[in-house]
Amino acid sequence: MAQDMTLLWGSGSPPCWRVMIALEEKNLQGYDQKLLSFEKMEHKSQEVIDMNPRGQLPTFKHGDNIVNESYAACFYLESQFKSQGNKLIPESPTEQALTYQHAVIYYNWFVPEGERHDSALKRNRETLAAELKLWEGYLQKLGSGAHLAGPHFSLADVTVFPTVATLFRFGLSTERYPQLAEYYSLLKERPSIKASWPPHWLENPQGQDTLKDI
Amino acid sequence: MAQDMTLLWGSGSPPCWRVMIALEEKNLQGYDQKLLSFEKMEHKSQEVIDMNPRGQLPTFKHGDNIVNESYAACFYLESQFKSQGNKLIPESPTEQALTYQHAVIYYNWFVPEGERHDSALKRNRETLAAELKLWEGYLQKLGSGAHLAGPHFSLADVTVFPTVATLFRFGLSTERYPQLAEYYSLLKERPSIKASWPPHWLENPQGQDTLKDI
Repeated sequence: MAQDMTLLWGSGSPPCWRVMIALEEKNLQGYDQKLLSFEKMEHKSQEVIDMNPRGQLPTFKHGDNIVNESYAACFYLESQFKSQGNKLIPESPTEQALTYQHAVIYYNWFVPEGERHDSALKRNRETLAAELKLWEGYLQKLGSGAHLAGPHFSLADVTVFPTVATLFRFGLSTERYPQLAEYYSLLKERPSIKASWPPHWLENPQGQDTLKDI
Repeated sequence: MAQDMTLLWGSGSPPCWRVMIALEEKNLQGYDQKLLSFEKMEHKSQEVIDMNPRGQLPTFKHGDNIVNESYAACFYLESQFKSQGNKLIPESPTEQALTYQHAVIYYNWFVPEGERHDSALKRNRETLAAELKLWEGYLQKLGSGAHLAGPHFSLADVTVFPTVATLFRFGLSTERYPQLAEYYSLLKERPSIKASWPPHWLENPQGQDTLKDI
């Protein structure tokens, strides 16, 4: 159980989702949480600004420690709760290298936190297509049923999965990206991911098709 | 000493500099290294592409493990060489939270890897000014002589310092940003930072003044 933790979040925001998956994986259910609306600009409310002067979601607090960056919060949770729940940073140097490498790779080209994903997706179509081809090749090399850092689910999957799910939500072709589709299909059944699935995606299972031609 | 490590890097690139500071802090001098030129597009050479299909610097390899993202490489080095050189992730939960939070914060708004910093700096002037004001306030609260996560130098400083140095290289006003100037002035004397100072900055100590009015 989560003691003295607060999460302010928005539905369907990959950075928020990352933190929620990490909390589930570390058996930290039951934290205080509040779902805020980007549309109503609630991420710029005083409540958020008080904890997070940048006015972004997620906003996360554990005791007196505020860790608002989604990657930072995931690393922090793994570090503070090493022996609780699932281990998210593998021991072997090779798997560890892959975990770190893939956990941060998306920052180079994808959705800046606090920015609406549709505009970001539209802006970066070419970069996105080039990047997705690299990932297809990478997943193909790993083989069927693999996670991003090897045989086990890791922090790399925590941070990357919400973005992959968002791509398919926006219509990415499962035919043109079969490896990513298989990865998506495998991970979406994982309990931590099901438990944290964006509520507005549950209400409206059909997303836009912005990415169908990529 | 560094065994079986290779770094391909570019002078004055904050992401490359991060990895070099981390290597110094962990007493991993003597690695294989090669200085490449962005101007001559050497970061798109076959040698780089073979290790890093994105054609970006830094490109870093340890044994068979390739970790090209600068943040990933810093975390990986700390993880693999925990008890060697200086400890870069503090033990206390509060300092740890600050380390993670500040180590990744810059990704939100600053220089994407592989992009020339001057163009990125021009594009983001307003965001940059707003962000720098937050940092001034933050450093003021910490008080004189502090590092980013508390009393000790940490991975937060490793990842943030090259960006701060770049800001001043591009003419940021030490009068308008006195806290950042003090932080810069304190850290630039640190051995790991002096040892890895960009060679072309040594040759041409005077940078451009792109940021003087921010």
